[in-house]
Amino acid sequence: MRFFSDNAASVHPKVMDALAQANEQDTAYDGDALSARLNGAFSDIFETEVETMWVATGTAANSLALAALCQPYQGVICHEEAHIEQDEAGAPGFYTGGAKLMLVGGEGAKVSAQTVNDYCAAIRDDVHQVQPAAVSITNATEYGLVYRPDEVAAVAETCTARGLGLHMDGARFANAVAMLGCHPAEVTWKAGVDVLSFGFVKNGGMSAEALVFFDKDLARDSHYRRKRAGHLQSKGRYLAAQLLAMLDGDLWLENARAANAGAQMIAQAARKRLLYPVEANEVFIRLSASEAETLRRAGFDFYDWGEGQARLVTSWNQSAADIQPLATAIAAL
Amino acid sequence: MRFFSDNAASVHPKVMDALAQANEQDTAYDGDALSARLNGAFSDIFETEVETMWVATGTAANSLALAALCQPYQGVICHEEAHIEQDEAGAPGFYTGGAKLMLVGGEGAKVSAQTVNDYCAAIRDDVHQVQPAAVSITNATEYGLVYRPDEVAAVAETCTARGLGLHMDGARFANAVAMLGCHPAEVTWKAGVDVLSFGFVKNGGMSAEALVFFDKDLARDSHYRRKRAGHLQSKGRYLAAQLLAMLDGDLWLENARAANAGAQMIAQAARKRLLYPVEANEVFIRLSASEAETLRRAGFDFYDWGEGQARLVTSWNQSAADIQPLATAIAAL
Amino acid sequence: MRFFSDNAASVHPKVMDALAQANEQDTAYDGDALSARLNGAFSDIFETEVETMWVATGTAANSLALAALCQPYQGVICHEEAHIEQDEAGAPGFYTGGAKLMLVGGEGAKVSAQTVNDYCAAIRDDVHQVQPAAVSITNATEYGLVYRPDEVAAVAETCTARGLGLHMDGARFANAVAMLGCHPAEVTWKAGVDVLSFGFVKNGGMSAEALVFFDKDLARDSHYRRKRAGHLQSKGRYLAAQLLAMLDGDLWLENARAANAGAQMIAQAARKRLLYPVEANEVFIRLSASEAETLRRAGFDFYDWGEGQARLVTSWNQSAADIQPLATAIAAL
Amino acid sequence: MRFFSDNAASVHPKVMDALAQANEQDTAYDGDALSARLNGAFSDIFETEVETMWVATGTAANSLALAALCQPYQGVICHEEAHIEQDEAGAPGFYTGGAKLMLVGGEGAKVSAQTVNDYCAAIRDDVHQVQPAAVSITNATEYGLVYRPDEVAAVAETCTARGLGLHMDGARFANAVAMLGCHPAEVTWKAGVDVLSFGFVKNGGMSAEALVFFDKDLARDSHYRRKRAGHLQSKGRYLAAQLLAMLDGDLWLENARAANAGAQMIAQAARKRLLYPVEANEVFIRLSASEAETLRRAGFDFYDWGEGQARLVTSWNQSAADIQPLATAIAAL
Repeated sequence: MRFFSDNAASVHPKVMDALAQANEQDTAYDGDALSARLNGAFSDIFETEVETMWVATGTAANSLALAALCQPYQGVICHEEAHIEQDEAGAPGFYTGGAKLMLVGGEGAKVSAQTVNDYCAAIRDDVHQVQPAAVSITNATEYGLVYRPDEVAAVAETCTARGLGLHMDGARFANAVAMLGCHPAEVTWKAGVDVLSFGFVKNGGMSAEALVFFDKDLARDSHYRRKRAGHLQSKGRYLAAQLLAMLDGDLWLENARAANAGAQMIAQAARKRLLYPVEANEVFIRLSASEAETLRRAGFDFYDWGEGQARLVTSWNQSAADIQPLATAIAAL
Repeated sequence: MRFFSDNAASVHPKVMDALAQANEQDTAYDGDALSARLNGAFSDIFETEVETMWVATGTAANSLALAALCQPYQGVICHEEAHIEQDEAGAPGFYTGGAKLMLVGGEGAKVSAQTVNDYCAAIRDDVHQVQPAAVSITNATEYGLVYRPDEVAAVAETCTARGLGLHMDGARFANAVAMLGCHPAEVTWKAGVDVLSFGFVKNGGMSAEALVFFDKDLARDSHYRRKRAGHLQSKGRYLAAQLLAMLDGDLWLENARAANAGAQMIAQAARKRLLYPVEANEVFIRLSASEAETLRRAGFDFYDWGEGQARLVTSWNQSAADIQPLATAIAAL
Repeated sequence: MRFFSDNAASVHPKVMDALAQANEQDTAYDGDALSARLNGAFSDIFETEVETMWVATGTAANSLALAALCQPYQGVICHEEAHIEQDEAGAPGFYTGGAKLMLVGGEGAKVSAQTVNDYCAAIRDDVHQVQPAAVSITNATEYGLVYRPDEVAAVAETCTARGLGLHMDGARFANAVAMLGCHPAEVTWKAGVDVLSFGFVKNGGMSAEALVFFDKDLARDSHYRRKRAGHLQSKGRYLAAQLLAMLDGDLWLENARAANAGAQMIAQAARKRLLYPVEANEVFIRLSASEAETLRRAGFDFYDWGEGQARLVTSWNQSAADIQPLATAIAAL
Repeated sequence: MRFFSDNAASVHPKVMDALAQANEQDTAYDGDALSARLNGAFSDIFETEVETMWVATGTAANSLALAALCQPYQGVICHEEAHIEQDEAGAPGFYTGGAKLMLVGGEGAKVSAQTVNDYCAAIRDDVHQVQPAAVSITNATEYGLVYRPDEVAAVAETCTARGLGLHMDGARFANAVAMLGCHPAEVTWKAGVDVLSFGFVKNGGMSAEALVFFDKDLARDSHYRRKRAGHLQSKGRYLAAQLLAMLDGDLWLENARAANAGAQMIAQAARKRLLYPVEANEVFIRLSASEAETLRRAGFDFYDWGEGQARLVTSWNQSAADIQPLATAIAAL
């Protein structure tokens, strides 16, 4: 059983169905009927008028968002363990034309208003030092922690005070909202987020993420940038179809709740080993090399996370019955 | 009936089936079993060892190819009507870090050895002028003309003599090979092509093109570049599945032959109106505004191509019965 | 005697003196007393409040200007023989992050409102085609022709109508103004120019050009871009000193008049050979290979300009006595 | 008296003389007689065949060097307080096309073989993480510490083992060599340095630094990159003249020794306050706000370096008599 990453899970049957139903000729690029419904569908979800673009990957979504927020000679403040810094091969540097990721620390990969303020305060206001233009936070974080609306609002307040834009990398935004139980608006635009990378691929989609602009002025140029990056697929309707299927009947929340529930089962079994509170669908635990070996021999696959630590990620398609053997095995270590 | 572009056609049922069959958990990115088969499958097709990468769009494929061939301070010679110059929103400039597209003319959007030589000869060999590093040709061209193997070889010979790489934009490579009736090797690596953008989306695929490196040294860095551009999809197996389905039983050729046959039907009906010989699946004809209006009122959709001209593109999924009404309508004008 | 280019001439003694006088410790970069005087000095010259930056080369000035006017995914319309296209090694592509130079024709390397309009009209307003953001004209042009104020105004009117910025490459701006006999304001901001590369190096300076922003909003980011390009010299006072010396007592005009007068002497002697009217300090003439050989053997150095043509450039430091032998030799051919 | 920075000092009279002597017409760019002598002159200094280019600033020299060593999708390991990271406005990101500066710690801004190894070991060898291509060290460091030849060799050995290039930012290379008393070859190419930014502006020059390629293959493309960055000055002979004057009779060493001696005088007076050993021409001391105030009121200018610390930099043109008052004032605090 694989607990390596949610990004390898299967695609939800309803998404597969939506692809099949989209399989007629239509206008190319994003001129089709399905793509035309996206702004409305996401505006409904967020209860405000948003502009939305589909892209194939979270890396593209994040990078396009940062390019919209940041000039080439500026910088983006993010956590030193953020995905954009650690796992995107320098994509932000590519899309922004060489802007700088400005790294801050923080428990569980969380960025706080304080760290942003401290970082900014240490920068001389001259042309020799790169000046920040934006902050990027990840919700849920790389360690599965969830920003509460007031935490986001605190960061956003700092951003406003300093003239910085605020991006949220929501590769696991669904898991965060599912955990919070709040309205998605509360933890995004109402808290001050300008643009959101809203992930679906890890949550039952196949190849479509949504880039959601709450600040619609930011969206204008992004259409050109998406095309210029080779991300304007000619058969875009198949991406739109995935997103609409995921929004339909709140499938995105249903899937995220399932994944989160799986993580809670593991957390319960591993409660003395937990490195972080388990809030979304990732479980980080202390695990010796021999214990890891034991689990792997029993058929469980997962990611070593430095010396004596492991990461276990649950997916939308893992039922309680799927998770139980792992929970039992961990409890038995 | 739509003759606007082949890039809006439906996806072939075998490709849809392949997606369904790929719908199990596997390793992410291109570590899955299907992606692992690509190099072998394409090496079989080309009868030489190639390195292959899937990407979502032709624009991404072309741009990655050019970035592999050309330093930021160099240039790529291409036709002034090439897709990379006209319709990719500056993507080559983005991916190469600002390299220059060096435009040459040529009937039917064909680049000849002579025009390449003339262009190069006019460049001073100093640091003030951008120096060319590669040539990009499109087969079939933007006007549906097909380069014969000896035409490619002549351009390639010039490239070799001048130290330039050779890229082939094969958005409609299948249509070209179907028309030529030759082995795909003959019009590519045997003729001197270094890297090929092998298109599938216009030919029955959904969202997967292949970037085929005949010069495998060029491929090394492209894996980093693909990821950095946000084109390394986490569920890459769904792209690999499409490509394998298209290669299987030469579906790519079968589809291309169908589209080409449709174009021939139109060409026959419009033979006095043809602006170019019809060799692939595009038909360019003289058509007055009122004639265009007549056709459109009859339900035929197509692209105006400048004053008094029109472009009609046929697709893999249009049968003779689908085409006949258009042919009849044109003949009746 | 060298008529190869004005960019190889000696430095005016007053500029050398200014360097010597600047040779005391002062604040670094552009925080010194001399740099602080630049905005005032140029505002006086142009009779409007401008923001000015020194840079070492015309290429840097032009590229910084274009980067201020144009996003990476946009384009700049210029003449196909413009220096930014032909002789700057792709610098505009580097500074703008890959923007496209959009080439138009025009006699004597002049861009007209008509050609700008025609070029723009042929661009589809969609994300697939690069959209123009600015126009760059060169005054005097690469063929030594001078735009009259009304010609500039006509181009600017088109720019305004289409939302494009207007840059003037004034590598030989002094020669243009000297010829026009007008106030420098008339042919720049009053005619609609947003930013001017005001050249001094070809006109008696050593290593300082001025980037003059009439639209001061455009200047803000350029300070960061200049530093980021390695063009913020720590001993900037030596550049400021050059510019101030050149402005003092209108030395820039005096030098330009001298160079223009030299060109007129040659033009007079070569009046049957002229390829273009001689308006600034460049003379383009028909000259057979054997005639060129004759002149070279007599000790005159110049640039072959294609088959049977030559370019002769006069400099600020060439007196009538210096020019006479060449004029005589040409007349004697 | 200014101890703010050596980059604001006056220009050495011999350099001024060299400018005056260069003031005749010659071939433009680097085709002149003086520029032609540079490779020979620097090869003599380093006792090996090098390729040398003049540029106006250390930022340009460093960035060109890094662009030669590093692809856009790669990274350069440097100290977190390195000038390229802290004070060059993101220039390395601009010149490399978005490469990543990979920051390591180390006392006194020194990079060690160990920190390079540790940093590299923590990077996964996959396409998701940016891979390092080079290491950049600064000699003397930002805190005025001098790498010994064996320290450089240790870093270089790691570089070789890992396939990384090695760049030395020698903005104060002269001060380092003066302190070491070794041959400049020993601490550069003999120790494994591939390319050196050899600073002259802080050491009596006006506007010329040397980029010295020990690995001549790296130099080839840099000529294009320099032009493309607007750093190929048309009157390059005035830069070459400065460099030749500085090399002549080892003026560069003489000036550096003078500056170092000044720093030693201050160090002696402030020996109980020193934050770092004083090895070059920079003195970092503990200094309370009121003490700083006292010194400033006495007419001494310097840089606050965080809370309770100050940086004092001596220059080539400060004699013992110039320094004495400061030394006395510090001793009297």
